[in-house]
Amino acid sequence: QMKKHNFNAGPSILPREVIEKTAQAILDFNGSGLSLMEISHRAKDFQPVVDEAVALFKELLNIPEGYSVLFLGGGASLEFCMVPFNFLEKKAAYLNTGVWAKKAIKEAKAFGEVVEVASSAEATYTYIPKDYTVPADADYFHVTTNNTIYGTELHEDLDSPVPMIADICIYGGAQKNLAPAGVTFVIVKNDALGKVSRYIPTMLNYQTHVDGGSMFNTPPVLPIYAALQTLRWIKANGGVAEMQKRAKEKAEMLYAEIDRNKLFRGTVTDKADRSYMNICFVMNDEYKDLEADFLKFATEKGMVGIKGHRSVGGFRASCYNAMPKESVQALIDCMQEFEKLH
Amino acid sequence: QMKKHNFNAGPSILPREVIEKTAQAILDFNGSGLSLMEISHRAKDFQPVVDEAVALFKELLNIPEGYSVLFLGGGASLEFCMVPFNFLEKKAAYLNTGVWAKKAIKEAKAFGEVVEVASSAEATYTYIPKDYTVPADADYFHVTTNNTIYGTELHEDLDSPVPMIADICIYGGAQKNLAPAGVTFVIVKNDALGKVSRYIPTMLNYQTHVDGGSMFNTPPVLPIYAALQTLRWIKANGGVAEMQKRAKEKAEMLYAEIDRNKLFRGTVTDKADRSYMNICFVMNDEYKDLEADFLKFATEKGMVGIKGHRSVGGFRASCYNAMPKESVQALIDCMQEFEKLH
Repeated sequence: QMKKHNFNAGPSILPREVIEKTAQAILDFNGSGLSLMEISHRAKDFQPVVDEAVALFKELLNIPEGYSVLFLGGGASLEFCMVPFNFLEKKAAYLNTGVWAKKAIKEAKAFGEVVEVASSAEATYTYIPKDYTVPADADYFHVTTNNTIYGTELHEDLDSPVPMIADICIYGGAQKNLAPAGVTFVIVKNDALGKVSRYIPTMLNYQTHVDGGSMFNTPPVLPIYAALQTLRWIKANGGVAEMQKRAKEKAEMLYAEIDRNKLFRGTVTDKADRSYMNICFVMNDEYKDLEADFLKFATEKGMVGIKGHRSVGGFRASCYNAMPKESVQALIDCMQEFEKLH
Repeated sequence: QMKKHNFNAGPSILPREVIEKTAQAILDFNGSGLSLMEISHRAKDFQPVVDEAVALFKELLNIPEGYSVLFLGGGASLEFCMVPFNFLEKKAAYLNTGVWAKKAIKEAKAFGEVVEVASSAEATYTYIPKDYTVPADADYFHVTTNNTIYGTELHEDLDSPVPMIADICIYGGAQKNLAPAGVTFVIVKNDALGKVSRYIPTMLNYQTHVDGGSMFNTPPVLPIYAALQTLRWIKANGGVAEMQKRAKEKAEMLYAEIDRNKLFRGTVTDKADRSYMNICFVMNDEYKDLEADFLKFATEKGMVGIKGHRSVGGFRASCYNAMPKESVQALIDCMQEFEKLH
């Protein structure tokens, strides 16, 4: 069978050894004669999985004292309401950088005043707004650092007169660089909790999961196990700094081809905002009617998941950590061959 | 390696072919050259998995028109707050049959008046309360049909002057008879939705998931895939009626031994309330100090997960659908051998 190059935006490519180790644990977990699917999360063999995943997460990301790492169900979409539930007392500031930011804003509005400090909606979110003022009396300022649909990414730390949400709580679906779908990681600052006056339903209260060590109720054991395998793989491959270096190299290879190739152009208007992970491009206007042809051409050569999101159109190549440089090169080769044909 | 008999209360035993098919899909999903862990839930290959799982669920449980079947993240514990969020306008009635019921009651109290119609807390929930009055002005009456910790189960339909929660919404963690941990099934009556006046956060609103066909956001794809394999297995093995028949047979075998064996006694005081799924027993008072010995003895013979919940003590043998009669017989053999030694 032809080698597949997996550019899916999420759920997305994972290291092959993570996949194989997870499949193996499903057949027989730790030589126990039982499947990972049928052991209790309270089994003494499973606690070390959670403990090591949390410890590696903290180590790899250099997370300081005073923060908890949680593995929860429900996806980032559930976090959109958990964040204001836990942190919004009166007013929150949000930067509108795309669909995910908009959804987060919508949920926050049920809990207090929400100030949208800036938006690039009028330009289909093809850049990240730069000049705006964050109200000094906001409880927090919420940003979406990587916008998977539009291919923009915040590469620099922002100045903010109020806590950045990222200072008190960072969250994300695991189905990108970490694990299969079904688990969400949350990094939460312990002393930022307990400051809102509303009642928070137990499962929506971060404190519940901090106290329960992500085991207040039955957690999604399979994705957590797979996350641990990925964290081990990241560590063995040089850690987060090396991942970032590789991501930058892969992205630069592909953006260079997009910028050079007469058929294509990138969609992100401010090059400083180009995402290293989700690389969005379309056909130049004079070649617009070749889009379907190129998709077919590339698909036949083993490219998977490169169709752009319907709100942007064109193509999106997601180059997550597990993607080898060879897959990016295979896509570039496709683009060059297709250019020669036209 | 010695054959293991998996009596875990949940996550718990699943049919071997479900485990093997899931492991296979993780290595290569549908011959696609990609893992189930790394394909998009929007991939055209995955939609049929969700569709078939929903259709089989409806078929096997004979679910009438007008109900939706959802597969959500978060566990039954998240449903404890979603139920009142969606259905409690003024007042709700709850039957307190154990820890899970108590947790559901606690969450409901944040949303309106909660009437606890009866409780068996004073007897460590060793029976299900029978004579009580459900207020006629309650929005719904909530019961927990199977109490995994205490081994009680509601075998008869109840009379209620108001909608039973089970008439409008049935939910449960999948990590018992359906799938690995990480997905919760919800059966919801469509026209019971939209009747409360409060704002419901998007992810906590059942309507969101009805409209999105359980794919509003990235769902837990692995557990859903495994659930489909289990549903197929149930159908191939005679359906829910056959599962119930087998469960009853297995439970009766084990209860008969508990009642016969001089060393043991069941903990559920009203035999009509004995669970077919979670069979709880302790050592008779005169043999109390043999508990640790029996646990060791049985563990050495391959019994897994038979230690009782700390609030009940003794032993709990969970006999879910995937458990063969042979495993129940192996436990009975253990009990008889141990009896002969004492």
